[in-house]
Amino acid sequence: MSAPGRGARAAEVGDRVARVALGRLGEPGDPRIARLVAELGAPAVHAALLEQRDVCGVETDVAARLRGLDPETDLARAAAAGIRFLCPGDHEWPAALSDLDHAGALNQRGGAPLGLWVRGPRRLDELCGSGTGAVAVVGSRSATTYGTGVAGSMAADLAGEGVAVISGAAFGIDQAAHRGALSARGPTIAVLACGVDRAYPSAHRELLAYVADTGLVVSELAPGCAPTKLRFLARNRLIAALGRGTVVVEAAFRSGALNTANWASLLNRVVMGVPGPVTSAPSEGVHELIRTRDASLVTRGSDVLELVAPTGTVVPVTHRGSERPHDRLTERQQQVLDAVPVAQAAPASSVARTAGLAVAGVVTILRGLREAGFVEVGEDGWRLASPPAGGSAVAGPVLTAERQAGP
Amino acid sequence: MSAPGRGARAAEVGDRVARVALGRLGEPGDPRIARLVAELGAPAVHAALLEQRDVCGVETDVAARLRGLDPETDLARAAAAGIRFLCPGDHEWPAALSDLDHAGALNQRGGAPLGLWVRGPRRLDELCGSGTGAVAVVGSRSATTYGTGVAGSMAADLAGEGVAVISGAAFGIDQAAHRGALSARGPTIAVLACGVDRAYPSAHRELLAYVADTGLVVSELAPGCAPTKLRFLARNRLIAALGRGTVVVEAAFRSGALNTANWASLLNRVVMGVPGPVTSAPSEGVHELIRTRDASLVTRGSDVLELVAPTGTVVPVTHRGSERPHDRLTERQQQVLDAVPVAQAAPASSVARTAGLAVAGVVTILRGLREAGFVEVGEDGWRLASPPAGGSAVAGPVLTAERQAGP
Repeated sequence: MSAPGRGARAAEVGDRVARVALGRLGEPGDPRIARLVAELGAPAVHAALLEQRDVCGVETDVAARLRGLDPETDLARAAAAGIRFLCPGDHEWPAALSDLDHAGALNQRGGAPLGLWVRGPRRLDELCGSGTGAVAVVGSRSATTYGTGVAGSMAADLAGEGVAVISGAAFGIDQAAHRGALSARGPTIAVLACGVDRAYPSAHRELLAYVADTGLVVSELAPGCAPTKLRFLARNRLIAALGRGTVVVEAAFRSGALNTANWASLLNRVVMGVPGPVTSAPSEGVHELIRTRDASLVTRGSDVLELVAPTGTVVPVTHRGSERPHDRLTERQQQVLDAVPVAQAAPASSVARTAGLAVAGVVTILRGLREAGFVEVGEDGWRLASPPAGGSAVAGPVLTAERQAGP
Repeated sequence: MSAPGRGARAAEVGDRVARVALGRLGEPGDPRIARLVAELGAPAVHAALLEQRDVCGVETDVAARLRGLDPETDLARAAAAGIRFLCPGDHEWPAALSDLDHAGALNQRGGAPLGLWVRGPRRLDELCGSGTGAVAVVGSRSATTYGTGVAGSMAADLAGEGVAVISGAAFGIDQAAHRGALSARGPTIAVLACGVDRAYPSAHRELLAYVADTGLVVSELAPGCAPTKLRFLARNRLIAALGRGTVVVEAAFRSGALNTANWASLLNRVVMGVPGPVTSAPSEGVHELIRTRDASLVTRGSDVLELVAPTGTVVPVTHRGSERPHDRLTERQQQVLDAVPVAQAAPASSVARTAGLAVAGVVTILRGLREAGFVEVGEDGWRLASPPAGGSAVAGPVLTAERQAGP
């Protein structure tokens, strides 16, 4: 970029170059910059800032800093490292991000990103746009093995269905979500609060390299930039915006994952939470989200798909549990069985009265039920059969308990 | 009861006696009997059934059975055993039960009970009516230690606030709910599917005796009656009807506790569920209830109170977690702290630029933050302080993780 002489009117640079420069100037997610760019266009904002003068006619600090930048070299260096810079208008720019223009701000962060630095072989617009789109799976860094286990298998389920799993590459739930998607050979997107060439946390260098080899690593920060707390807050809005919905797996009351959930809510995305023991602190924030913020409870990938898929493309699954032996009885058999006492035996006449049926027919049915192992008969009459010795191992303790003590 | 001669017109007996007799005749929760009694009154139904003749003029089986009963002796024997029989119109009759008249049927059971056999020193109308009323806490017999622990402490919380805890005296969650209420010296009501003089399951003989000493044991079945599957289904509607709401703590997909929840829903009571690990079968039915039936997720007694208490009597509790050191910072201090890199140190000028503040002021603030232990300074500049060696034990791992890795 050629530096015009002092006092000369700043030449307008191209949109892409202006966006890189403005991105270098401020912090990501500054809603003032986003608003100006949306109204005037990046080149005009860039030019206006370059010309800023204080009362003595000296260029302002902002103008001086802007003049010191070299966005064209930034772009060339990034390209050499396999990193591309996406702008609105590019084919690969995800339409979903424009929702940020009108969503307002959280923690003084907001607005669409000026652009996105991207590494990886997949197309961001395709992963976020087609079919069921992408889903964010986020949660605590200080997760439990329960939480990471659920996040991993949920991510594997989703990625196995072709849904891209978005997360933040942090320890705990994020890591488990990316790994789950990778384990299913499915697409995954890591959205970072630092440059896409950096590994933060450094322990995830290999994980991020694997994500960049098969999915996408994305950031609105230029290569080389370090993470700050503010940048994590800004980053969270991108995770929420790129997904059809956000699933929070474990999050204590003050977890950053809840900030992502708040963004998802602000963006009218589906907000989902995976419950856990009420005695587990890392689940408290999720329960609060479901309890007071109308987040949907989800327990597995199919629950998530049902909520995020376009209407009519997924058949809702009602979990019913496995079939029980009772389910194969005729209505009449069921009626008689229901009338047999659970503990103290009763004569057939008493069973018949309870069932509201004739005694003769009931005796025939009781004999059939005895052959099938449902009831037993003794001197005192008929009663429900005791579960077989090994029965609980086969049928499960629930069935056994139901049989013993009624519904 | 004097037996009128054959062919003589049956004399109408009193309402209470007619209800005891009709209760002995059929199964509890027979919606046809309930409807007839609601329309014609128990004495008229009793008299009509006594007169039933088949085509040959011989009295029907029903009329013969009715004639063989001795409800007055039933009442006298019960009274001698400390058991009273409540009818609609009695002061102690809970108004809430009339909701069953219009709620329809489930599993061919429905309608208000003909009467209730009651043991115990408390008044049923008072426990179910005043203030926040009563709450049902139900769940699996095959519960986990997690489930019984949560049920027990939730019941203790509720009973400690004077809310009567209703349950079914079964193994598992029911038992834990009664015990929790008793441990808080609070009121509890056991609603049985057999006579209130019986112990079912027999292992709960002592528990039921304790409940009868301090709270109430209730059944629509006459003393001596044995439990059947049908009677459990009928009983569940009473548990749901007597409570302002029903909390399901653990329930597999086919658990009878879900039948109680369905009744609560049919009766426009608050339906609540306690979540658990999604990997735990006894929590699956509860998750399904929250996911597809709009049951409210609750995690502790105060959540339940908030939902069942009359509007305005309980202040909703938003769980926020404990205060963090950050919460005591000024807005300006927070702004500077947010701009300090988490990993790689940066000079004060860089922090100032990120924070959007003048360098001189930022240096002063950074020094204050260093004294307070939030940041540290080295040759390369400023960065967030490492958590103190013993810090995680004091502040908890979540706080530590948040500090290390941003929100």
